[in-house]
Amino acid sequence: MNAPNVPDIVISRLPVYLRALQFMEQQGIKTTSSVSLGEKVGISAAQIRKDLSQFGEFGKQGTGYDVNELIEQLQQILHVQKVRDVVLVGMGELGHAILRYGGFINRGFRICHCYDNDPAKIGKMIGEYKILDVADLGKTIRECNVKMAMLCTPAITAQTITDIMVESGIKAILNYAPVSLNVPKDVRVQYIDPVIGLQRMAYYLNKK
Amino acid sequence: MNAPNVPDIVISRLPVYLRALQFMEQQGIKTTSSVSLGEKVGISAAQIRKDLSQFGEFGKQGTGYDVNELIEQLQQILHVQKVRDVVLVGMGELGHAILRYGGFINRGFRICHCYDNDPAKIGKMIGEYKILDVADLGKTIRECNVKMAMLCTPAITAQTITDIMVESGIKAILNYAPVSLNVPKDVRVQYIDPVIGLQRMAYYLNKK
Repeated sequence: MNAPNVPDIVISRLPVYLRALQFMEQQGIKTTSSVSLGEKVGISAAQIRKDLSQFGEFGKQGTGYDVNELIEQLQQILHVQKVRDVVLVGMGELGHAILRYGGFINRGFRICHCYDNDPAKIGKMIGEYKILDVADLGKTIRECNVKMAMLCTPAITAQTITDIMVESGIKAILNYAPVSLNVPKDVRVQYIDPVIGLQRMAYYLNKK
Repeated sequence: MNAPNVPDIVISRLPVYLRALQFMEQQGIKTTSSVSLGEKVGISAAQIRKDLSQFGEFGKQGTGYDVNELIEQLQQILHVQKVRDVVLVGMGELGHAILRYGGFINRGFRICHCYDNDPAKIGKMIGEYKILDVADLGKTIRECNVKMAMLCTPAITAQTITDIMVESGIKAILNYAPVSLNVPKDVRVQYIDPVIGLQRMAYYLNKK
């Protein structure tokens, strides 16, 4: 199930397939096809079949995919069947919203600690979470052996925080700050950027 | 510059190229190549050249791309050289964070109105914005002829709000709620979902 050298562009689509399948599962749908899945995610059926074929055989000719089975297989490929710890840095409005976000459940991630540098916020409780001092960020990342982080500080402090995280062992950063981060080659960054989604849709508005 | 029937998967990559080029521009970089751009966005140089070739000729053999020129061309293709109005629905912590987000500037979008259904919030000012009553959502969308929306209500009200927006003429929705939206075929939805980014990165953590 672990294929060598699959292009990142293929990997980037697997979570999209997984989410669509989990929506289907919630709606009680038991089987699907590459055509039906493709319509839901806006990717061609042929592309979906080609992507999945990189990891082995899925589904059956004529009967399609068993939704639950394909969910489990994708979870295995992405290694998100277990729950992984993520630190959250920057407890402004966005940090609060992420902490309360309902979409992490059953999808492989758990926020383990959250941090801020504002003395007025440090020590405060948000639900079950106590806001920690960002001065302890490196120490706690090392102690808990955390590898993933969500960064929602202001743009101006994002690089400084990133440097501390990378030095402490973080290997994957989800960056909400509207700024490009410099990281070593073995660290991955994904940007959460509403403008990317808006621009993609704007293309179609103008075609009409 | 307007190519017919370009696959959506190609369109989805153009904003990513555009953002990387705008980062380069900010850093004072004048020219780039498909190889260098590819390294920044994690997409192969061949794919970038193939994507751009759908819209005509870009760059010169041997000298690469003029960064400013390619920015302008991509902005034209995506029709984001002008500023487009977007409504924002749901003024919880996330809505507040989006309203203050610094990343919209010069990228083609402007939040024109924001809405909530909470009487304690309606009428309040956030910077230059007054929070409007969501009961007036349909009316104001029609009056201002807005076509795009950002949805950050709780999951439970997301579909109801979506129905009102679609009925009032919204054609593109950026959905922050962790729920699948049902819309007619001529309406586009993009999901802002942190888990997609985390899962994509998780794949690589486990390969080691």
